[in-house]
Amino acid sequence: MADLLVVGCGLIGTSVGLALAQAGDRDVLLHDQDPAAVAVAVARGAGRAWDGRLVADLVLVAVPPAATGAALDEAQRLGVGQTYTHVSSVQSLVQSEVEALSCDLSSIVGSHPLAGREISGAAAATADLFVGRPWALCPSPASSADAREQVRELITACGGVVVEVDAELHDVSVARLSHLPHVTASALAGILTAEDELASPVCHELSGPGLVDSTRLAAGDPALWAQILTGNAHHVGPAVAQLSRDLAALAEQLAVLGEAAQAGAARTHALQAVTDFLERGRQGRELVPVKRGRAQADFGTVGVTVDDRPGRLAALLAAAGDACINVEDVHVEHVPGRPHGLIHLLVHRQSVDDLSTALAAAGWVVQGALSLPSD
Amino acid sequence: MADLLVVGCGLIGTSVGLALAQAGDRDVLLHDQDPAAVAVAVARGAGRAWDGRLVADLVLVAVPPAATGAALDEAQRLGVGQTYTHVSSVQSLVQSEVEALSCDLSSIVGSHPLAGREISGAAAATADLFVGRPWALCPSPASSADAREQVRELITACGGVVVEVDAELHDVSVARLSHLPHVTASALAGILTAEDELASPVCHELSGPGLVDSTRLAAGDPALWAQILTGNAHHVGPAVAQLSRDLAALAEQLAVLGEAAQAGAARTHALQAVTDFLERGRQGRELVPVKRGRAQADFGTVGVTVDDRPGRLAALLAAAGDACINVEDVHVEHVPGRPHGLIHLLVHRQSVDDLSTALAAAGWVVQGALSLPSD
Repeated sequence: MADLLVVGCGLIGTSVGLALAQAGDRDVLLHDQDPAAVAVAVARGAGRAWDGRLVADLVLVAVPPAATGAALDEAQRLGVGQTYTHVSSVQSLVQSEVEALSCDLSSIVGSHPLAGREISGAAAATADLFVGRPWALCPSPASSADAREQVRELITACGGVVVEVDAELHDVSVARLSHLPHVTASALAGILTAEDELASPVCHELSGPGLVDSTRLAAGDPALWAQILTGNAHHVGPAVAQLSRDLAALAEQLAVLGEAAQAGAARTHALQAVTDFLERGRQGRELVPVKRGRAQADFGTVGVTVDDRPGRLAALLAAAGDACINVEDVHVEHVPGRPHGLIHLLVHRQSVDDLSTALAAAGWVVQGALSLPSD
Repeated sequence: MADLLVVGCGLIGTSVGLALAQAGDRDVLLHDQDPAAVAVAVARGAGRAWDGRLVADLVLVAVPPAATGAALDEAQRLGVGQTYTHVSSVQSLVQSEVEALSCDLSSIVGSHPLAGREISGAAAATADLFVGRPWALCPSPASSADAREQVRELITACGGVVVEVDAELHDVSVARLSHLPHVTASALAGILTAEDELASPVCHELSGPGLVDSTRLAAGDPALWAQILTGNAHHVGPAVAQLSRDLAALAEQLAVLGEAAQAGAARTHALQAVTDFLERGRQGRELVPVKRGRAQADFGTVGVTVDDRPGRLAALLAAAGDACINVEDVHVEHVPGRPHGLIHLLVHRQSVDDLSTALAAAGWVVQGALSLPSD
């Protein structure tokens, strides 16, 4: 009996296979209705192709949300495994589907890794996709203790952080934390397609990095995301409506402020409302874990200007290593045609001063030690 | 006569001083109503403190938008320079203010670097803040040719890319490209402050990197941003209202999809509308320049798993250097408590395969060559 049968060799399924391959000697079987996807996943080293007969301890159904319930039902009817899980972005929908299909509910435990990316498919998979990321574990009341434990072990083996939460709370949480940001990115990016005076190249030249980050999620697959939003529509809909109302209220205050003829008291009131809106956003931002569960305040950056040629970045990091300081992240602002670039090194807050001093002493052009915004 | 007098030693003013100091032997004078800000800027190497008497070829007023018009007027009345510019996020407002104040309009040329960050003040300044970034040049019809040329030279000396555009088109562009993303980030983050069942830690544990990027701008200073939004209210207001309407329309379609009892035709129509919304967003995202003016499609990333200890990142970059491949950007997914991290190296598309092959041959664990989402 194999350890795992992965049904669906997309980004998630293939990444699970790669993670287990890296973790040790698990026997992973791979299946997809598209043989080409299986071929890519096998070539990437995610496991071996399923022959249609072998059974597995655990079956992972990693297909789009709308197909998940039916795939679980089919897998159970074929008897290809002992325990079943899936990775749907929407949990309640799948729970009610498998109930309606009269599946054996004791052997099914839903789960959802919070670890997507804007690109999909086996070719985009990586063994580290889940490392340190939250992975929701959503047992139903009928799920057996043994099944829960098996899925929990899978998550841990992939490097994920188990967050046990019931299906309903999961769905309403991701509506706000994942689906709403996606919708917002799409709405913002969608406005850029307007064919008005702002469609001219000179206008788009005025965009900065904020727009890049704000619209990143909009690159996701529209068909997949339509399924996700549909599957969670009764939670996402009200969240989108709330956001729309908040923005409409802000637009009204801005209309007052845009009206030069408005009296002093009305302007003062509107300005206060706009400031309150921004202040509330600043407070909300402080609630967002920026570094996989660790608060932003734990880190600081050191900026260094370097010549823009191969090897300089390596030499800089070697200098940090000489000072025995572990660099947590690197951001390079490299500009074509310019002789230098700015490199930000992210380190623990308590190492910021040491790193600045060490690099300056070694002759590097340190631009200053910066703390991150949440300070 | 000095080359430049900077009025306002905040992030922008101090960064201009640092950029000119790096560019060569310019004589930069620094002034701020807060002597402590001048002291920090001088200590950073941005120039020397203004004595209140010396005059300069060019005066850069780098104070918050609401104070800009009055500061230009005062500077002209004191006769401290020959040409005047400012860096207000809102241009039309300042133009009408200096007109109303009967300033000499021929010597004033407005400008606006698209290069902010979420932290402010002289301590956050960097010499490279403007390198490769768009910097709008917004002359009024009254601006003299000589004044335009002087401001253009300043922008170029700071490494900025001049984008000449009239004040009105600038303001309507940044309403959409900069102010609207800020508002959206604040609205999204603001929703996280709701004191409901989702305020529990377990819910916030379910957040992923999408939420981090989507709310980054919300960390900005509420008082400063209230000024910016107020100054551009007649353009930002309608843009926010449009976004609100787009989201309200989506919420209505999601309400249909969330209603299990809805008939087939209504569901099909709603699903199509949601897909269209997402598709429009995907198209809009393709219009966003992701790498300072260069299309996303020019780059690809190579993922490599490395041990999480000092020096490994340097060794990896040295290996890339050995292959004579210039790494444009590095993203480290470092996870505390895990023995390895995933490093993404961003390189020119045509170097992706060469780098993967070279690193694999050198014994690195290459996770695959990925192209970026816009492909």
